[in-house]
Amino acid sequence: MKPALPKGTRDFLPLQVARRKYIFNTIEKTFVKYGFLPIETPAMESLSTLTGKYGEEGDRLLFKILNNGDFLAGADSEALEARDSQKLIQSISKRGLRYDLTVPFARFVVMNQNEIQFPFKRYQIQPVWRADRPQKGRYQEFYQCDVDVIGSDSLMYEAELVSIYSEVFASLGIEVEIKINNRKLLFGIAECLGIEDKFVDMTVALDKLDKISEAQVVEELKGRGIEESITIEAISLIKSDNLKDFTEKFANSETGVKGVEELLKVMDYCKRIGIKDLIFDPSLARGLGYYTGCIFEVVLKKEKYHHISMGSLGGGGRYDDLTDIFGLNDMSGVGISFGAERIYDVLSELGLFPQDVEEMPSAIFLAMDDQSHEMAFDWTMKLRKIGISIDIYPEPAKFKKQMKYANARNFKFALIVGEQERNEGKVALKDLDTGNQELMDFEMLRRKLQK
Amino acid sequence: MKPALPKGTRDFLPLQVARRKYIFNTIEKTFVKYGFLPIETPAMESLSTLTGKYGEEGDRLLFKILNNGDFLAGADSEALEARDSQKLIQSISKRGLRYDLTVPFARFVVMNQNEIQFPFKRYQIQPVWRADRPQKGRYQEFYQCDVDVIGSDSLMYEAELVSIYSEVFASLGIEVEIKINNRKLLFGIAECLGIEDKFVDMTVALDKLDKISEAQVVEELKGRGIEESITIEAISLIKSDNLKDFTEKFANSETGVKGVEELLKVMDYCKRIGIKDLIFDPSLARGLGYYTGCIFEVVLKKEKYHHISMGSLGGGGRYDDLTDIFGLNDMSGVGISFGAERIYDVLSELGLFPQDVEEMPSAIFLAMDDQSHEMAFDWTMKLRKIGISIDIYPEPAKFKKQMKYANARNFKFALIVGEQERNEGKVALKDLDTGNQELMDFEMLRRKLQK
Repeated sequence: MKPALPKGTRDFLPLQVARRKYIFNTIEKTFVKYGFLPIETPAMESLSTLTGKYGEEGDRLLFKILNNGDFLAGADSEALEARDSQKLIQSISKRGLRYDLTVPFARFVVMNQNEIQFPFKRYQIQPVWRADRPQKGRYQEFYQCDVDVIGSDSLMYEAELVSIYSEVFASLGIEVEIKINNRKLLFGIAECLGIEDKFVDMTVALDKLDKISEAQVVEELKGRGIEESITIEAISLIKSDNLKDFTEKFANSETGVKGVEELLKVMDYCKRIGIKDLIFDPSLARGLGYYTGCIFEVVLKKEKYHHISMGSLGGGGRYDDLTDIFGLNDMSGVGISFGAERIYDVLSELGLFPQDVEEMPSAIFLAMDDQSHEMAFDWTMKLRKIGISIDIYPEPAKFKKQMKYANARNFKFALIVGEQERNEGKVALKDLDTGNQELMDFEMLRRKLQK
Repeated sequence: MKPALPKGTRDFLPLQVARRKYIFNTIEKTFVKYGFLPIETPAMESLSTLTGKYGEEGDRLLFKILNNGDFLAGADSEALEARDSQKLIQSISKRGLRYDLTVPFARFVVMNQNEIQFPFKRYQIQPVWRADRPQKGRYQEFYQCDVDVIGSDSLMYEAELVSIYSEVFASLGIEVEIKINNRKLLFGIAECLGIEDKFVDMTVALDKLDKISEAQVVEELKGRGIEESITIEAISLIKSDNLKDFTEKFANSETGVKGVEELLKVMDYCKRIGIKDLIFDPSLARGLGYYTGCIFEVVLKKEKYHHISMGSLGGGGRYDDLTDIFGLNDMSGVGISFGAERIYDVLSELGLFPQDVEEMPSAIFLAMDDQSHEMAFDWTMKLRKIGISIDIYPEPAKFKKQMKYANARNFKFALIVGEQERNEGKVALKDLDTGNQELMDFEMLRRKLQK
């Protein structure tokens, strides 16, 4: 049989794993510095935990796991007779694959509330699965990197998260804009235009302004019963870049005023700690329904990277009721996530991965005969014992074959041992870039490789 | 709703994640030192890749993923009418969850044979899923840590792997016995007893000798057509601990002689590099069918830990035909794996986890009023900027509440700032173990925390 991978999934070769680790480690190091703690949740969750949390579309994209054993024995006969796939699912599948890290986090907090301390600062870097149609840059299995704090409404955490964004992207060498807005400000706009009952419709439509034209947004909202003039005014409002413009407009919107205050406080925090890449953008809406306060999105700095077309590299915001569905109320939280797959693509395109990202030995022993191989193996093991990574070709094969392997694996040095070197108690260290060769005894070699 | 986890799955709290990382990192560091490279494969594999590779029992224990959308539209009508679950699976599920890392590795090698160099030294640390009945220490989702080299029959690699076992367990502080045997030697025994056609039956039965009595093994093999006297002789043979005993017995078994030679060579390698915990054990059989040469198993050193009853902490061996099923022949390989879950249990039971395994800040700022909180936040961010991990309570709450949090989170120091400290430009560093308190300016604090 010719093996194949399921569509939308990937194997990772060593260099790819190393590059991905570089991204995850950079992110994780920053999380740790800010006092966030790691948790992990299982790949499989009960379908009852997942279903209904991501909208109808999300429910369809959940991967469901077939019950083991004779699953038809417990199947819903009516659904079976009617060949109704959707209705049948409940009776033949009780588990699904994690769709994101947010719902499992909410479940985790509720189930472990007596083991953890609030405010609970956690991060989680794990794969998620979605039955989306695979396309360039979109996979059915991909990693999410989330960092959240739950159990406090302090706006200091918004500032910490903005600072984490700023530090991580600076460490990676990518210049970004961190956009900030507040759902309460958006609600204030709806309120002062008298369409607060259509707040969700408005938000969803405005969120599309970077993909569709203003005329199309007007059209869409007309279909939802919002007059053209109101939509036009809303669009004009969210083009402002001066936060203070909004205060006077919100004379009749307490929520709107609260939104402005929250934004001012967060921006003040950020200014004090010297963050320069934070930008107030009232057109930022974020589709997800659970946000209730500040919202964030990170994009490439346009002036710098106008040649790269790439969606957001991260996003997040504050939510007040995440754990409500699992029975734990009054838990305000705020979190952001990093789009690791897109960050990978940006680093690749800009050639920003460090040269030495792959953790592999710099040198490999190549022996010319059995006795030399014995000596090479002994040296190899002695070097490893003192902590030096080193490799050895497994047998005294033809020199050409061994050199070909050493070059293909991209070792920096070949350590060649033949009868002559062995009799002198030395090896020839050959630099595979320059071709230079130098005889070394064990002590010289140790010093060379330990650097 | 009251949330729950699917049976056999687990959440990991921060301390557990940290301890698991400690184990994985210790193992990984050793793999890297020996020149092994990381790969990753997807959690979901095509069912055609997985089915039939783990025996009938394995097929049953595979988690199958329901096809998305209207899966009944493509379902096998006959199987549906007959309510035949097993027959129906093929037509409603085309993907399954990874059951181990060995079959995905074989598939990976075949699919990526032009991207990799042989001998290919790889390691892989990822979760696998099995629909086993959950019980103490057995989960439906658990990690495997595998290290293999494929594309060479050099016995040097057996020695490298034994050395990896030895180093990893020494690093973890666990004393072990590494048992070695060879499937060719077992075949030699079958051959010299004239039951080579019943080799598999013999191996499977002998493998059970640590669980069932000799009489039961005799009985089992009688059922397979092997006479009692022969089974008794086989049992007596595998009680020998002198490898040389076998050479004379194998006068008529070329394979048996080869097995002895291989063992001698590997043991010679290991002796030369000073490995003391390798033990020849001809009763070691290893159930898995694909082994063809040396086989290994690691157990706790009995004299040392007679109070702990624990199965093997790892095992492995050489295989000649792993990639055959996927169409790539003549690829000899050898690999071992680490039982990370059991290692976790042993380290817990023996109290061998390092104290500082959890990566969290040593100190947290507690502020007594708004202005002090501003100062504390500025200091926090300045310390983080120079690479120091540090946390801060999000607001100037009641002192008692803040101290309770600092103690519950197990910080080493609380950094207390009130009006008095602030006016002096200092903070009070309180050691939460001893209760000692000391006033410090920023520079003193930096030096204290950087240590």
